[in-house]
Amino acid sequence: MGFLDDNYLLSSKTARNIFKKISDLPIIDPHNHADVKEIKENKNYPSPWQLFAATDHYVWSVLRKCGVDERYITGEAPPLEKWMKMAEVFPLIAGNPVYEWVHLDLKRHFGIEETLCEKTGKKIWDAISEKLALPENKPQEILKRIGVEVMCSTDDPVDILDNHTTVNQMMGRTIVRPTWRPDRIMKITAPNWREYLSKLECRFGSRCYSIKDLVEILKISHNYFAENGCRVSDHGVEVPYPAVTEEKDADRVFKKAIQGESISPDEAYLFSDYLFGVMGELDAEKGWVFQLHIGAVRDTRKLLFERIGPDSGGDVSSHFLDILPPLVSFLNRFDSRLKVVLYCLDFSHQQTLATISRAFGQNIRLGAAWWFLDTPYSMKRQLHLIGTINLLSAFAGMVSDSRKILSYGSRFEMFRRVLSDVLGDMVEKGQMPEKVAEELAYRLSYKNPKEFFNL
Amino acid sequence: MGFLDDNYLLSSKTARNIFKKISDLPIIDPHNHADVKEIKENKNYPSPWQLFAATDHYVWSVLRKCGVDERYITGEAPPLEKWMKMAEVFPLIAGNPVYEWVHLDLKRHFGIEETLCEKTGKKIWDAISEKLALPENKPQEILKRIGVEVMCSTDDPVDILDNHTTVNQMMGRTIVRPTWRPDRIMKITAPNWREYLSKLECRFGSRCYSIKDLVEILKISHNYFAENGCRVSDHGVEVPYPAVTEEKDADRVFKKAIQGESISPDEAYLFSDYLFGVMGELDAEKGWVFQLHIGAVRDTRKLLFERIGPDSGGDVSSHFLDILPPLVSFLNRFDSRLKVVLYCLDFSHQQTLATISRAFGQNIRLGAAWWFLDTPYSMKRQLHLIGTINLLSAFAGMVSDSRKILSYGSRFEMFRRVLSDVLGDMVEKGQMPEKVAEELAYRLSYKNPKEFFNL
Amino acid sequence: MGFLDDNYLLSSKTARNIFKKISDLPIIDPHNHADVKEIKENKNYPSPWQLFAATDHYVWSVLRKCGVDERYITGEAPPLEKWMKMAEVFPLIAGNPVYEWVHLDLKRHFGIEETLCEKTGKKIWDAISEKLALPENKPQEILKRIGVEVMCSTDDPVDILDNHTTVNQMMGRTIVRPTWRPDRIMKITAPNWREYLSKLECRFGSRCYSIKDLVEILKISHNYFAENGCRVSDHGVEVPYPAVTEEKDADRVFKKAIQGESISPDEAYLFSDYLFGVMGELDAEKGWVFQLHIGAVRDTRKLLFERIGPDSGGDVSSHFLDILPPLVSFLNRFDSRLKVVLYCLDFSHQQTLATISRAFGQNIRLGAAWWFLDTPYSMKRQLHLIGTINLLSAFAGMVSDSRKILSYGSRFEMFRRVLSDVLGDMVEKGQMPEKVAEELAYRLSYKNPKEFFNL
Repeated sequence: MGFLDDNYLLSSKTARNIFKKISDLPIIDPHNHADVKEIKENKNYPSPWQLFAATDHYVWSVLRKCGVDERYITGEAPPLEKWMKMAEVFPLIAGNPVYEWVHLDLKRHFGIEETLCEKTGKKIWDAISEKLALPENKPQEILKRIGVEVMCSTDDPVDILDNHTTVNQMMGRTIVRPTWRPDRIMKITAPNWREYLSKLECRFGSRCYSIKDLVEILKISHNYFAENGCRVSDHGVEVPYPAVTEEKDADRVFKKAIQGESISPDEAYLFSDYLFGVMGELDAEKGWVFQLHIGAVRDTRKLLFERIGPDSGGDVSSHFLDILPPLVSFLNRFDSRLKVVLYCLDFSHQQTLATISRAFGQNIRLGAAWWFLDTPYSMKRQLHLIGTINLLSAFAGMVSDSRKILSYGSRFEMFRRVLSDVLGDMVEKGQMPEKVAEELAYRLSYKNPKEFFNL
Repeated sequence: MGFLDDNYLLSSKTARNIFKKISDLPIIDPHNHADVKEIKENKNYPSPWQLFAATDHYVWSVLRKCGVDERYITGEAPPLEKWMKMAEVFPLIAGNPVYEWVHLDLKRHFGIEETLCEKTGKKIWDAISEKLALPENKPQEILKRIGVEVMCSTDDPVDILDNHTTVNQMMGRTIVRPTWRPDRIMKITAPNWREYLSKLECRFGSRCYSIKDLVEILKISHNYFAENGCRVSDHGVEVPYPAVTEEKDADRVFKKAIQGESISPDEAYLFSDYLFGVMGELDAEKGWVFQLHIGAVRDTRKLLFERIGPDSGGDVSSHFLDILPPLVSFLNRFDSRLKVVLYCLDFSHQQTLATISRAFGQNIRLGAAWWFLDTPYSMKRQLHLIGTINLLSAFAGMVSDSRKILSYGSRFEMFRRVLSDVLGDMVEKGQMPEKVAEELAYRLSYKNPKEFFNL
Repeated sequence: MGFLDDNYLLSSKTARNIFKKISDLPIIDPHNHADVKEIKENKNYPSPWQLFAATDHYVWSVLRKCGVDERYITGEAPPLEKWMKMAEVFPLIAGNPVYEWVHLDLKRHFGIEETLCEKTGKKIWDAISEKLALPENKPQEILKRIGVEVMCSTDDPVDILDNHTTVNQMMGRTIVRPTWRPDRIMKITAPNWREYLSKLECRFGSRCYSIKDLVEILKISHNYFAENGCRVSDHGVEVPYPAVTEEKDADRVFKKAIQGESISPDEAYLFSDYLFGVMGELDAEKGWVFQLHIGAVRDTRKLLFERIGPDSGGDVSSHFLDILPPLVSFLNRFDSRLKVVLYCLDFSHQQTLATISRAFGQNIRLGAAWWFLDTPYSMKRQLHLIGTINLLSAFAGMVSDSRKILSYGSRFEMFRRVLSDVLGDMVEKGQMPEKVAEELAYRLSYKNPKEFFNL
């Protein structure tokens, strides 16, 4: 087989047959980090670096691991120099999905078959540059070419969603929906929390003297998002909250915080736990999907955090997190009233989450293998685990989780190939008829996310 | 390949050769949840639902996950309606082992090759119904057809074992042995514990004023089980007990409990811990096998627990359990004096258990991949792990763990195919000669359980 | 395929091509437990047992698991009797890597194709014995035949390194380098700690009245090792230390300890934590590699510990260890100043370590799958995990970790075959071009360890 040829990731004839049936399905992407302003402005990209790497922290992270200086990653070096540094070390990242995504993007969008390395770097730069100014390589055209039917960006409760509206008007259909992600208000001990609270107050023209006031503002924001097409919220937590705190306890903490008093970890927990429950209630009322990203331990590497800021490559996963008791408590509070998608970052947690999701019925679903696990090897493992411990048919489906528009296509293509391979393998082993496998492939690639997320 | 054809789960020629040698071996099933009364009464089943689903909580669980209403699972709906609901959602459970077990049962016992779905549901119902009244489909005939040589049901210390005796007389050999499972007496804080204690006292005609009295009664029960062919005990624990508590401390707690005083979790622990050690001693004296089912976190979903009762689908596994220190303490108390089988529910625990079993020698064995792990994918993973970290030849072997008589055959067939595939793969990769693999296959399918459990 | 034939572990044509390119590369072994005196004395081995089993605790452990009496393992039985007991049970260990290593050694070094069992045991003993007296089977000739370019033994700070010097002189090049492994001084509560401290004082002619004095002695030892070619240290810990304790706190504990006062676990922790940081500083100054073996829970089985002593087969791994916070603290103290290799013993920890290593950049590397994980199945799994979560190109590479000279060859052969198979599979699936895979294979087999460890 050749590198990224038609049989890429498809190890059996049945796998190839299944992939043929789903490869052209439109993309439903219920979670990504698109810059909607970029889509609205719809400008041609100034350089291959901007298109392929400047916004992609997956790329940054592997370049750092190869020892590339920060100047050539997020620093001041000119784009071509950055690109050439990337080209130089690119053969060293083979095996990592970034290697496959970038080469898929080169091939699918620019017809480039050569592999990126020191020798080919400039030639590939030139070949891309030549086509960058074409209308077909503007963000909106890329989204059409990839086949994005609808996608959910990630937005803050303070955000104004005019860009979403404009994009949808420009493209003549609802292609971009917002996601309500209230992580910042949760972090009551963060140095900039009060500043953020002021922003919220400002945005909605109302001061918060109590947690009731805060919840009121959040409701207004939640409603505003709903009016602008939002169907999902998203929550990033190391460990979920049980959502058992009473309002008066959270209120006490909130009042201390707004007076600038110092907040202990236990107090902070009460505040966050209460709000977590409130947010579940808001979603339950509107039938939204509560997306829960579990297990990222943030900003562990001081050097990166101090030089480049939060979420910049020092994040890790930990097997040693006791996620079960609080998650069970949270799910029992709502049971079937709330749709939940559980995204798992550490393989050790997958079975725990798979059994919880099984126990709690149809509305509690497992989400796509996330971040470090968004790879052929780990997606395969996850699909086997979901299929045997939970149900494949209840899988929430793929999300791109990407900040780079170009890569939505390659990420979904990788997923669909892996899915076809897993199902093909089960058919070849006599575990299900091919027709049933085809139906599952269709569900997981299109029908499930469309229906479950109501997109 | 076709669905469930001869090559089902066998991916190499060597795998197929190995399977041929073991496929017809009799079944030794050291752990299941058979209703021995059902076997004794030996009546024809009233409906396909009764035979295929009414007693199978694996089926219940996946139907719930598909959104089927409880009325059509454990509720009041007529059997045919339940069956049709199951048929309707059955294609949605493909990938889950229930899909394979049920279709294997349809094929092996009723010659039905069609797959169950809305369209075929009634036709398959009719085809089964037609044969349900035949003598060959009575419980005892099914057990013969499956090739069960001997099996251990799961029984409570208060149980009277007359049904076991009768079945063995009817069938002309010792086919059913009891298992002594004293979980209920361990749960001193359970609401019905005192009631259960009364039952025990009643059953053996003796009042318990101290823990010594209780142990005395348990010994009588243990002896009674021994006289009725019992060779194994079974213990379900979230985390094992270290078995280090002294009698006087347990006695103090026991006395509080029988006077109706409230028992703290720490006190309850002392009581259970002491009894756990006692139970090890009882088994050690008689050379029984102490089966330990580790890691099930019970009844997490309130709704199910309240509506349907304990162990009804809200059970999950958790990676985050510290099983090593107490288990090591327990095993050190007995070392080689006690035969122990460790059943593992969460994949994260498997290596911990495999290394413990390796360290503690021949009498401490790993048991079959359990419950959520009783699937082709996870059995394969477990066999690889046991083989490389422990020894395949020291594996305790397969158990059905099932409440549904019909399914013993399909569960053992699945295991033997997976085993053949794993060994076949090792032969194909040059890791062992075929003759050695065949000998291991025979051991793990028949010889090991027969000898180790003394059945 | 035949047992251990040319295609052993190589499941595709590409895998076989890749293996051809790396099979003859010299061996760089940055971590083993060689007895350097044995190499210096360079005597012929007195018996097959001595050569194949007497120093190999992997063999001991599986024999024990098969129920072989200790007399025939580490006991008094004559070598031939021990050998025959091993032969008798050897078919029972098929699947475990010991089965493959021993047969590879029989084949590669003695041309023996038969498999070891009761029937062939004596014949194989005779065939080996015949050749044992040949000059080619002396330790130094074996090392040459295997192709060892350089290897690092494991040594204590008190050790005199004359044997290393002599071996290198005899062999005409630097083939054996020492490793500074200061585990014993860390264990301040161990019964023989003060005795060990006296040894250290004696060795370097200086009394320790404070922790400053102790650090001074350790520095002298560290320098002495450096002068004798040392480039690496090694540290065995259940859980890493954060290295945050101040000198004065450690000093207080040290002074209590040398006065024979009892030391609490918390105090011991302060002492060890401080020294852990000191050792990092020593390595950082010299550019050494700090090797960290994480997660072995030692001496769990009392019976083995009491009869045979420490590290004699009662060691296990545990998933339930919170390694992240202390390791992150330690790595943040040094960031890129210190080269670190993380060796992982439990599969649950692998993702945690892989993400930490990814976050902390080029100088923090993952080491070979260790001990229970040093098997085809687990090496493969580890390579997939490193490749997708971290970078294959940043893998520190294979180490033999063995006490048995004969086995270095078979262990490295097994690794290189698995590596070729993993890369071959990725090429076959279209995930990377063959040329890139070949380059990675070369890096991981030779270039990386040579450069990173500076050997």
